[in-house]
Amino acid sequence: MSKKQKFVRESFVTMTEFVLPNDTNTLNNLMGGKLMHWMDIVSAIAAQKHSNRIVVTASVDNVSFGKPIQLGNVVTLKAKVTRSFNSSMEVHIQVEAEDIPGNKKFASNSAFFTFVAVDQSGKPIDVPEAIPETDEEKELYAGALRRRQLRLVLAGRMKPEEAVELKSIFKFEENNG
Amino acid sequence: MSKKQKFVRESFVTMTEFVLPNDTNTLNNLMGGKLMHWMDIVSAIAAQKHSNRIVVTASVDNVSFGKPIQLGNVVTLKAKVTRSFNSSMEVHIQVEAEDIPGNKKFASNSAFFTFVAVDQSGKPIDVPEAIPETDEEKELYAGALRRRQLRLVLAGRMKPEEAVELKSIFKFEENNG
Amino acid sequence: MSKKQKFVRESFVTMTEFVLPNDTNTLNNLMGGKLMHWMDIVSAIAAQKHSNRIVVTASVDNVSFGKPIQLGNVVTLKAKVTRSFNSSMEVHIQVEAEDIPGNKKFASNSAFFTFVAVDQSGKPIDVPEAIPETDEEKELYAGALRRRQLRLVLAGRMKPEEAVELKSIFKFEENNG
Amino acid sequence: MSKKQKFVRESFVTMTEFVLPNDTNTLNNLMGGKLMHWMDIVSAIAAQKHSNRIVVTASVDNVSFGKPIQLGNVVTLKAKVTRSFNSSMEVHIQVEAEDIPGNKKFASNSAFFTFVAVDQSGKPIDVPEAIPETDEEKELYAGALRRRQLRLVLAGRMKPEEAVELKSIFKFEENNG
Amino acid sequence: MSKKQKFVRESFVTMTEFVLPNDTNTLNNLMGGKLMHWMDIVSAIAAQKHSNRIVVTASVDNVSFGKPIQLGNVVTLKAKVTRSFNSSMEVHIQVEAEDIPGNKKFASNSAFFTFVAVDQSGKPIDVPEAIPETDEEKELYAGALRRRQLRLVLAGRMKPEEAVELKSIFKFEENNG
Amino acid sequence: MSKKQKFVRESFVTMTEFVLPNDTNTLNNLMGGKLMHWMDIVSAIAAQKHSNRIVVTASVDNVSFGKPIQLGNVVTLKAKVTRSFNSSMEVHIQVEAEDIPGNKKFASNSAFFTFVAVDQSGKPIDVPEAIPETDEEKELYAGALRRRQLRLVLAGRMKPEEAVELKSIFKFEENNG
Repeated sequence: MSKKQKFVRESFVTMTEFVLPNDTNTLNNLMGGKLMHWMDIVSAIAAQKHSNRIVVTASVDNVSFGKPIQLGNVVTLKAKVTRSFNSSMEVHIQVEAEDIPGNKKFASNSAFFTFVAVDQSGKPIDVPEAIPETDEEKELYAGALRRRQLRLVLAGRMKPEEAVELKSIFKFEENNG
Repeated sequence: MSKKQKFVRESFVTMTEFVLPNDTNTLNNLMGGKLMHWMDIVSAIAAQKHSNRIVVTASVDNVSFGKPIQLGNVVTLKAKVTRSFNSSMEVHIQVEAEDIPGNKKFASNSAFFTFVAVDQSGKPIDVPEAIPETDEEKELYAGALRRRQLRLVLAGRMKPEEAVELKSIFKFEENNG
Repeated sequence: MSKKQKFVRESFVTMTEFVLPNDTNTLNNLMGGKLMHWMDIVSAIAAQKHSNRIVVTASVDNVSFGKPIQLGNVVTLKAKVTRSFNSSMEVHIQVEAEDIPGNKKFASNSAFFTFVAVDQSGKPIDVPEAIPETDEEKELYAGALRRRQLRLVLAGRMKPEEAVELKSIFKFEENNG
Repeated sequence: MSKKQKFVRESFVTMTEFVLPNDTNTLNNLMGGKLMHWMDIVSAIAAQKHSNRIVVTASVDNVSFGKPIQLGNVVTLKAKVTRSFNSSMEVHIQVEAEDIPGNKKFASNSAFFTFVAVDQSGKPIDVPEAIPETDEEKELYAGALRRRQLRLVLAGRMKPEEAVELKSIFKFEENNG
Repeated sequence: MSKKQKFVRESFVTMTEFVLPNDTNTLNNLMGGKLMHWMDIVSAIAAQKHSNRIVVTASVDNVSFGKPIQLGNVVTLKAKVTRSFNSSMEVHIQVEAEDIPGNKKFASNSAFFTFVAVDQSGKPIDVPEAIPETDEEKELYAGALRRRQLRLVLAGRMKPEEAVELKSIFKFEENNG
Repeated sequence: MSKKQKFVRESFVTMTEFVLPNDTNTLNNLMGGKLMHWMDIVSAIAAQKHSNRIVVTASVDNVSFGKPIQLGNVVTLKAKVTRSFNSSMEVHIQVEAEDIPGNKKFASNSAFFTFVAVDQSGKPIDVPEAIPETDEEKELYAGALRRRQLRLVLAGRMKPEEAVELKSIFKFEENNG
């Protein structure tokens, strides 16, 4: 019997935060840890919307921080599920910062968080399949397999030689010809 | 002229946190984003101790979350600089959780955060070399190069074929012979 | 010379919040004051986007609270400027709550906040005219004059008999015929 | 059988808050939303004292904000029930701000919040009658009926022509003679 | 020339707090540290009112905690300056807790905090003399000398044999006859 | 039958905190109440580690505050149980502050907090004996009796003439010879 399906866009969520003094370091820049805290909340909501379940954070992929976000800036976080695997969901988060009085807006960074849907007793439970529609959604969907293999390899739960999809990014094959 | 040197152990820092209601989800488990917020603070202090500078978070490596940490648990985070590269420092964080009345203690997870030391105007500034002494410090020191290449490849700032150290982990060469 | 104009939609902002334990009363329902705090932040951002200025809250219109919002619910606040008057802007906020695992979503309430744009010294400064496009925007735009008169009458800054627009809502005239 | 009665003064409560960095905007002034959050807490306590029940915020009347309150100021909020209607209570809040080292004290603003007393299951439950004693209490008591009609009209739950008390404020009759 | 004088009652301040989830331990009781945090704020305001200066906490006398205060209780803190010594002021704080729906009210505990008034550069500066009027104020005023000597002895800044006032409480003399 | 015993060092705990804007007063110095809040948390964890029980704060001894700790400083709190008495434990806390970029580190202050171990219903329950090993631990252990008597005398629960240990500190006997 076929599994339940939901469109990627049904999980889409936008969160807006104002950078307050306690969110900043001594240079008045937003602390990385606070931004990750917000990323976790917005992506958990996206995963909840996709699964209609309580979700728990399973992993966070490599995140890098670029241009500093400053005190008084408005931070917009947009999240959507990219793909699901049994009880787990990968969520993509895009962060944008804006100095509104200064009329400056810039893409800050992006990240992938993975969540597991659980029942009331905390046991993993299957989630609907995520159906991509736009080109960007399809690209994120395709890449999810590769990122999942990297996660498993880094967590020591998959042997590198089994990570078929991963090889295609690193393209080490071509270099060994 | 030789660069300033500091021992890895000089950057060591321990942080202890009590899991309060607002740190938890509806299952009364610590939210991943809150734990990352704490990881960022403890590792920033380690990087500050190594560099005696203001530091900013540059990146976070893949983090995975295992056994849930619960309301009322005590969380201990231990951080130390593993290696420095010009103005950047990689910090290793180990997280342990304890249900003290229940007499249960378990390793929760570990992570690598990277920081850049900056001057008062926010410009990167060189930091001392980190000198490992124990076997564990030496192993973390050696692995830092590999993790750095993975970060650069993932951020699109290094070509996979140039990531010499990285290849040794993935050992794709052997599989393609 | 004509004043600068901006479309209502350019000020649109969405904010999403997770109801945490400290946001709730002893019945585990979101406290009204916390919701108004969020309303103030989201509407201030809308007013900032319209004016590209620092803004200060000038007034809040009558707000009523209906069905309780519960611990663990996701609250979505949507705000947009409805109309501007010299240096002041009226912002409309719509609040929606969702019990995602329970698959229940409901309109919670709505409100009008008024902001004044100020320069760095805190002095009021003119803002662009707000141009409505959709039917809903045009209706909110038209009603803004009436709500403004009610605010002025309630604040004792306008005599009731001068509140021409206001009369049309109360339609007291017909009853005195 | 006669209903339980309590004096207005029995519900009186004073709350004092220190304006901290996170309570302020980029001009170092207290944010309106934070002040409303405090207003809600102090007035909920007054309503609890009157009813000896759990209370939930039902509505907030028009609030206007005057002179800015600054970082480091001490804010004093005084609340008391003005009148009760079955299970609901209107509470009056007066806010005063003080720059103590600068020896400046000023009335900031005032507001009316309405609460409903509920039992443990959240169902409305009757509260004692509020008995005013002083002239100020009697005036607030008398006005409560008028404000209640305005609330009902604005919420679309009373037709303007039925709002007898309300007419006396607007005195539209005299103008139509 | 005579020093400036102020009545004890001019420094009187009342603070009311609602016990929220994050203020409590796993037994749902208010944590002692949170109560001391509130005590510090309310007594700093009393010291500010007496001195019209910025004040810094100099010391806290022995505090004991009795009956637990619970989640949802209302805590009332009342503070007033008891006596001043050059640039320092002793403040007395009385804490009362109330379970309003349960109609239970009890004195929780009391404490003495000492503050030093400072100028903008942080240097101690003289404060007005505190004039007690009521019997309770006079008793607190008289005892302040004794408590001050105990503080100085405990801090190693006064030899026990010089603490003349202190002896009168311990009345060790009588026992050595 | 002999009571369970635990070494003092088994209760040792280190907590590290970063001084954020909301922790400071208008001079940008850490507020005393916030520091006491942290002291309470770290010492409660030490008492929990000794007793493997839920613990409640019973009392705080005289604490004095010296050199101000500033915004951006790192505060390190170290706590250990010094001695136990039936269900209560005295905990010693040492606080150190560090301005890391400024390369300045200083002992801030120290304190003694007392906790009572309780069972799930909140009733006191016996705890293991604390066994000191080092000279510093032995000295703290010996002094605990004296401090306990002072606490009991100050709380009016012991007559000064019965406080045998206490007399030895005050050495009032010699002065009455």
